[in-house]
Amino acid sequence: MPGPPPTPYLRVDLARLRRNVRRTAERAASGRVALRPHVKTHKSLQIARLQLSSGAVGITVATIGEAELFARHGCADVFIAHPLWVDERAAGRLRDLAETATVAIAVDSLVGAANAGHLLGGSAIEAVVEVDSGQHRSGADPGDAGAVALAAHRSGLSVRGVFTFPGHSYSPGAQVSSAQDESLALARARDAVAATGIEVRVVSGGSTPSLAASDTDVLTELRPGVYVFGDAQQWELGAMPRDDIALTCRATVVGHADGRLVIDCGSKVLGADRAPFSTGFGRLLDHPDARLTLLSEHRAVAFLPDADLPALGSELDVVPNHVCSAVNLVDEVWVQEAGSLRAWPVSARGLNS
Amino acid sequence: MPGPPPTPYLRVDLARLRRNVRRTAERAASGRVALRPHVKTHKSLQIARLQLSSGAVGITVATIGEAELFARHGCADVFIAHPLWVDERAAGRLRDLAETATVAIAVDSLVGAANAGHLLGGSAIEAVVEVDSGQHRSGADPGDAGAVALAAHRSGLSVRGVFTFPGHSYSPGAQVSSAQDESLALARARDAVAATGIEVRVVSGGSTPSLAASDTDVLTELRPGVYVFGDAQQWELGAMPRDDIALTCRATVVGHADGRLVIDCGSKVLGADRAPFSTGFGRLLDHPDARLTLLSEHRAVAFLPDADLPALGSELDVVPNHVCSAVNLVDEVWVQEAGSLRAWPVSARGLNS
Repeated sequence: MPGPPPTPYLRVDLARLRRNVRRTAERAASGRVALRPHVKTHKSLQIARLQLSSGAVGITVATIGEAELFARHGCADVFIAHPLWVDERAAGRLRDLAETATVAIAVDSLVGAANAGHLLGGSAIEAVVEVDSGQHRSGADPGDAGAVALAAHRSGLSVRGVFTFPGHSYSPGAQVSSAQDESLALARARDAVAATGIEVRVVSGGSTPSLAASDTDVLTELRPGVYVFGDAQQWELGAMPRDDIALTCRATVVGHADGRLVIDCGSKVLGADRAPFSTGFGRLLDHPDARLTLLSEHRAVAFLPDADLPALGSELDVVPNHVCSAVNLVDEVWVQEAGSLRAWPVSARGLNS
Repeated sequence: MPGPPPTPYLRVDLARLRRNVRRTAERAASGRVALRPHVKTHKSLQIARLQLSSGAVGITVATIGEAELFARHGCADVFIAHPLWVDERAAGRLRDLAETATVAIAVDSLVGAANAGHLLGGSAIEAVVEVDSGQHRSGADPGDAGAVALAAHRSGLSVRGVFTFPGHSYSPGAQVSSAQDESLALARARDAVAATGIEVRVVSGGSTPSLAASDTDVLTELRPGVYVFGDAQQWELGAMPRDDIALTCRATVVGHADGRLVIDCGSKVLGADRAPFSTGFGRLLDHPDARLTLLSEHRAVAFLPDADLPALGSELDVVPNHVCSAVNLVDEVWVQEAGSLRAWPVSARGLNS
C-alpha cells in the first residue's frame, strides 16, 4: 500500500459509499421506480459502475462532455438533464454519442425544442420536457409541457416524458413540501403531454434532500446525485446523518494563531459553496460543534468550543459544504477500504461543455 | 485560427492583461518597492513570464506544488506565503526545490519555526515571519514577530524579514484602512525583529484592493495576485474598473424560462464564491445593471432590467466574482488578441499540496 498523499486530499470511505449506493437502490426498488443517478457528483467511472451494477437503469449527466466520457467507458444510457442550445457542433457530438449509447436531451421551450428537432430530428435521440417545480431555474410551466412536447414531436424528436429538479429542496424543512411540489408539477406536466396524444413513458424527478419524500405514485424515475457521498449541506438539512458521510477532505493543522485552528484546506479543494442555510464554510467530522468560520483559497479557520486544539501537524477530516464542488476540484479521490488506500480518477472533472 | 471552444470557457483579453501587468509594475517601480506577484490567480507559466519580464523580482505561491511547477519552468525565486507544517516529506521537497530556485517559506509560531528549522536548518531556504494585520487567518501578533524570528534563527533558518496579507481589504470602503493596518502591523513586526539583532531585509505586504493605498515608506515588497485579471469583487470594491477586467467566462443563452435569462455557466466554471459584499453570484460585462441571482453547477440565472433578453443561442461575457476560483476550475484559458484565439494551459491547476 502506498502512503497517503500530502494533505489536503479527498478521501472516500468505500464501505459507507457502498452502503449509500445500496440503500438508495433499495429505496427505488421498493417504490417500483427506476433509479438514474446523477454522476456529476462523483464524475467517476468506478462509482458509476457500482451504481449500474446495483440496479440503476442508466445515468444522468449535466453536459455533453460528461455524456461522451461515460458513454465511451460503457455507460450505455445517458440523459443530459439541462436544456441545451443545440448548434451544429453540439448536434454533431450528440449524433456521434447516439451511435454508442441511448441518449436523451432536455427541452423546456417551443423555440429550443424546434431548434433541437431541426438539427437532431429523425435521430434516435429522445427529448424529455423539463418543467419548473419551484426552483425557478430552467423548465417550462407544467401547463405548457404539452405544447413543448408537441413542438419537439413535430420537429422530429421522439418524446420520452417529463422531468423536473426540485432544487428548492435545499432549504431547511423543505424536504416534504418540495417533494409535494415536484409531484404536483410532474402530474400536471404528464397530463398536459398526454392530452396531446403523446405517450408519457417517463416521469422523472428527485434530489437527495427530497428523496425520502418522493411521490413514487407519480414519479417513475429518480435522479439523485449527492447521496453517494453526502456533505455538510445534507447533514445540516437532516437529509443524511453524519455517519453516512462517505467523503471528507483530509487536512493538516498548520496553525494555532490567537487560539484559532488553522488548517491547510481552502476553497480550492473544498469549493466556496455556502448556502443561505449553511452554518459555516464546512464542518469537521469529529468535532460536530465546530464550524469553518473563515475560508480562503488554501486555508480554513475553525474554533473548537470546549476542546483542546488538535496539535500542529495532526490531521482532521473536513466535511465540504457541497461535495459536487469539492470533487470537481481534484484529479483523483483516495478510496479507503480495510487498510488499503488507492486513487480513483475523477475522470469527468472539468467537462463543462 | 481554430474556432473557439464550446461554451462555457474562460477568455482572456491579452491587451488588458498586458496593461494590468504593466501598470502594477510601474506602480511598484514608482514607489521603489519590489513586486513579487502571487501566481495562484493565474497558475500560468506564460503570465508569470510576462510579470517577470516586466520587472517582478520573483513570484509568490500558495503551495509547495505550485513552487515546484513554476521553478521547474524557470521561475528562479519563489516565496511560499502560507505557514506550512513541515514534515519529512515536505522537507525533502523543499530541499529539492532549493537546488534550482531561491526559496522562502512562512513561519508564524515558535513551534512551527522550530519544527521547520529542525528539518531545514542549514539549507539555503529562508524564513519570513507572517504577522496578522487584521484578516485574522494566520500570522503571529506583530509584537511576537521578534520571538518567532529568533526561534527560526536559532533553529538554523536564515530570516529574510516579515510579511502580512491584509485580507480584510476585501470589504467595501476598507482599502485605505486595511493598508494603514498593514503598514502599522508590518512596522511593529519589523521593529520587533530588528530589536533581536536580526536584519530585516524584506517587509512584504499587498493585496489587489489595498494596492493603491500601500504604504511604500514601510513596505519593501508587494504581492498582489488578482490585478492581472480583475473580477466582479474588484469591480464592486472599486479597486478595478469594469474596463480593466481582462478575463470573462463566455456563456451561451440557453433559456428564457418565465422571463429569466438562463445561461450555460455555473459554479463549476465560475466558482461559488460570494463575499458578504457581493451583489450576486457574478455579473455580465455588457449589462452592468444585471446580476447572477441563482447559480447552480452548470446554469446561472440573471434578470435584465430595462432590456430585451438576448436571443437563445447568443453568447455573453460573464464576470466571475473571484477569478482565482474560476481559473482553478479549467485546464486552459483562451487568450484573445487582435483576431487570434489560442489556449494557454493553467499549468498549476489543482496543485493544492
